[in-house]
Order: sequence, then C-alpha cells, then structure tokens
Amino acid sequence: MTMITTEMLDSYPADLGGIDRQKLAECIQECYSCAQACTACADACLSEGDVAGLVKCIRSNLDCADICFATGQVLSRHTGYDANLTRAMLEACATACKACGDICAEHAGHMAHCEHCARECRKCEAACRELIGALG
Amino acid sequence: MTMITTEMLDSYPADLGGIDRQKLAECIQECYSCAQACTACADACLSEGDVAGLVKCIRSNLDCADICFATGQVLSRHTGYDANLTRAMLEACATACKACGDICAEHAGHMAHCEHCARECRKCEAACRELIGALG
Amino acid sequence: MTMITTEMLDSYPADLGGIDRQKLAECIQECYSCAQACTACADACLSEGDVAGLVKCIRSNLDCADICFATGQVLSRHTGYDANLTRAMLEACATACKACGDICAEHAGHMAHCEHCARECRKCEAACRELIGALG
Amino acid sequence: MTMITTEMLDSYPADLGGIDRQKLAECIQECYSCAQACTACADACLSEGDVAGLVKCIRSNLDCADICFATGQVLSRHTGYDANLTRAMLEACATACKACGDICAEHAGHMAHCEHCARECRKCEAACRELIGALG
Repeated sequence: MTMITTEMLDSYPADLGGIDRQKLAECIQECYSCAQACTACADACLSEGDVAGLVKCIRSNLDCADICFATGQVLSRHTGYDANLTRAMLEACATACKACGDICAEHAGHMAHCEHCARECRKCEAACRELIGALG
Repeated sequence: MTMITTEMLDSYPADLGGIDRQKLAECIQECYSCAQACTACADACLSEGDVAGLVKCIRSNLDCADICFATGQVLSRHTGYDANLTRAMLEACATACKACGDICAEHAGHMAHCEHCARECRKCEAACRELIGALG
Repeated sequence: MTMITTEMLDSYPADLGGIDRQKLAECIQECYSCAQACTACADACLSEGDVAGLVKCIRSNLDCADICFATGQVLSRHTGYDANLTRAMLEACATACKACGDICAEHAGHMAHCEHCARECRKCEAACRELIGALG
Repeated sequence: MTMITTEMLDSYPADLGGIDRQKLAECIQECYSCAQACTACADACLSEGDVAGLVKCIRSNLDCADICFATGQVLSRHTGYDANLTRAMLEACATACKACGDICAEHAGHMAHCEHCARECRKCEAACRELIGALG
C-alpha cells in the first residue's frame, strides 16, 4: 500500500510554485509514516517489561507523532503558501525527529520497534532537511 | 514509499490478541493515507475557481481527515485494547469516509483531486468495515 | 482564561439549525479541555514511580485525547452539517471518556492528576451525552 | 467553563524545572483555545458569501489550528523535557499565530468571526513569545 500523495499533488488545480515536487511528496509521506511509527513505538514501549526505563522514549515518541502529523498537514496545503511558516514547521519537525531518532537508537539493539522507529525518524528528519534546502 | 506499519506490528512485544494482522495493518495505513488525501483535497478545492460550490466538500474533507487520523492513532495502540472503543471509532471513521467519498464522487468527473480522494475514501471505508467484521 | 467558543458560535454567518447552542458550546469546550487533561495525565503517569502499573491508564488517556480533539474539531464546524457523523463521533467520544474516566477513577485516591482527569472525563462524557440527547 | 490546566500542572508528580508555571499554563490554554477558534473561523469563512475572497484566510486558519494543537500537546508534557524542541514549536506556533492573526485582522471590520479569531491569535502569539522569553 502506498499513499496517494503524488496523485494529489499532480491534481492540485493551481500553481505549486517552484517547489521540488519529488522532495515535497517524500517529505509529506515521511511525516505521516513517522507519525504512525512513533505512535506505535510509544505503545510498544508501554508493553515492554522495562517501561520505567523507557519513559523519555515514550514522551519523545508522543511529541514526534504530534509534530510530524501537523507538519504533514501544513505541507499538504499549497493555497496561500507561506514559506516562513513552512520552514519553521520543518525545523521543528526535524528537531523532533532528531531527538526521537536519537533516543530510539539507544534502544535499537534490544527492541526491534525502537530500531524500526529510529530508522523512520532518520528518514523523516532527512526528508525535512532536504525540503528545507530545496526551499532556498 | 510505504509505511512501516507491518514492521511496527511485528515488533510489538506483547500479544496482539486474535486480531487479523493483515486487515489491521491495511486499515491503519488507509487511515493515515486518507487523512493526507482529504487534507490535500480540501486545499485543492480552495484553489478551484468554483470554491463557493465546494464548501460542503471541503467541510467533509476536514472532518474526514481529523477522524481518520484519530482512528489511525487508536488502531496503532494495542496495550490495554478496548474492543468497544475500537469499534466505535471504526464506525465513526467508516461514516466519515462514506460521507466524504459520496460528496467527492459527485465532483469526480471534472476534478481529479476529488476523483482520487473519493477512491481513497472508499478504500478506507472498506478497510474499516473489513476490520469491524474481523473483530467479531 | 476561557475559550471564545461562544463568540465564535454567535458570529457564525449562516443558520446553525435547531441545535441547542448552550449544550453545543459546552461540549466543544469540554472536548478541548479533556484532550488537554488526558495528554497531561498520560505524561504525569509516565513520571510516577509505578509507571508499570499505569500503562493501561496511559493508553486510555492517549486515545481519549485524540478522540476528544477530533470530536471538538467536528463540533466546531457547522457548514454542511451531517447529523449522522456528529452522532457517531459523539458516541465514540462518550465511549472514550467513559473508559478513561473509569480507569483514572481507580487511581484517583492516590494520584491527584488521575482524580482531576477522571472528573474532566466525566464532564466531557456528560456533555457528549447531553448533546446527543439534544440532537433528537 | 475553564480548562483544568493549572490543576494538572500542580499535580504533576515530578519536578517541572525552573519554568514559569503561570506563563506555561496560559500558553497551554491559549494553544487549545486558538486551535478551536481557528477551526471555527475556517468554517465560518466557508459559509460567507464571499468565500472565494477568503481562501488564504481559511488556509491560514487550518495551519494555525493544527500547529496550535501540536504545540499545546508538547507543552502539556514535562517528562524528559527538551528545551530545543519546546522552543522550536513555540517559534513555529508564534509564526502561525502572527500570520493567521494578520490575515484575520484584515477582515475584522466586516466579519465578527475574523475579529474574534484575530484577537485570539494575537493572545496565543503573545503567550508563545512570553514563554519563549521565560525559557531563558
């Protein structure tokens, strides 16, 4: 199953401006995918025997999920585009993904959900930074 | 790009119960994908010349996006599973997708974003109903 | 500080239909307030010494927050009103608030955040049921 | 009706750090209140006769609602506090509130919902900036 982000971008009826469509589509998809992965990772952590040792990871997952979703929403809109706001959200999202990726990576060796989630956070962070760079 | 929903489900450290994993994974992915498509469709409608004729479609898109996201979040959690709540959200989500799919389908002939979004809403509605059925 | 829900309702430029404005305003406010309280309660539980005994409470808080927010969003929209969808979300929200209120109430005796959150969940559940009744 | 943010802050079982509790509570409440107001304003704009002239306002409302909610969520959590992330979200939120407040203010003279929403956006922006200042 893949998201239909590209079809939605291609059917936008007005000008998308000079934005890099491929980088935009990837970043949108990573935002929703990372929101899902972080929500699932927080929940998986809650079912680990050592949940007490994972509370910072859970909190980081929850923040990252909320921020990734909000960023995906903002990036999915093109009408009345505001470069300042887009950049500010991408910066916040990259910051959240970096923090969550780092903390999940610490547990990646013995918890597969943290390993998967760390990888997803890295991908989403990279997609955000790529898009920031492409905004010029 | 695909979501890592299946990897996250497979690495959940406790028992998922008797739930159909394939149907669950599909429903989760459709929820996030439909949230993205509906957000993009609302925005595309805002850039159409005849936006005044699309206000009900936009409103339906906005509701569907909020509900699909909340449903995807609930379905991504397995700790302390509550069948009543899962069912209630799946019912609300199927209702939202049906309504939004119907209204987008009315415009599908002349607006590609509504055509894509209607198809995505149908898929998400079907995935919700499949999962309701599988809950027994 | 109070929310400006009533001012927003009073300045809606079209007909709100026969809905009970007072019950609607209260339910909207309880939805956002309960989303905040549940998010804070989940986080407070994460900082308790006995977090392992609170994982079901945390999960219930997270679901309730997501559903209350989505419900508040749907109730804040009046254009193209859909009674079926409103009812389905109110039912899901009342179900989430009942479940979360029950589990928080079990801990209310020794954790003030669960006591406050249980009370807020009860209020939000009651506001949802009042509004369902008023929808006829 | 008032939110129970203060009660939730006061019952947090661990140390909140040196943060200004009053400014934090106000900012949290403004975030949820602004999310509600912006969602309602977007919908009110959809029911105006001149919706075609309001599409940028609607888009700005939708972004501001998503970002205010995510910011309120992040601020409601204190476990594993991350000053960098808090600051990045507060900056994004202040940026969104400034943009939305400016565009709503342009219509404040003839649409009461935009007047109310502009005032709410100004209050939320101010609360975010106050809190950024208090973070040191």
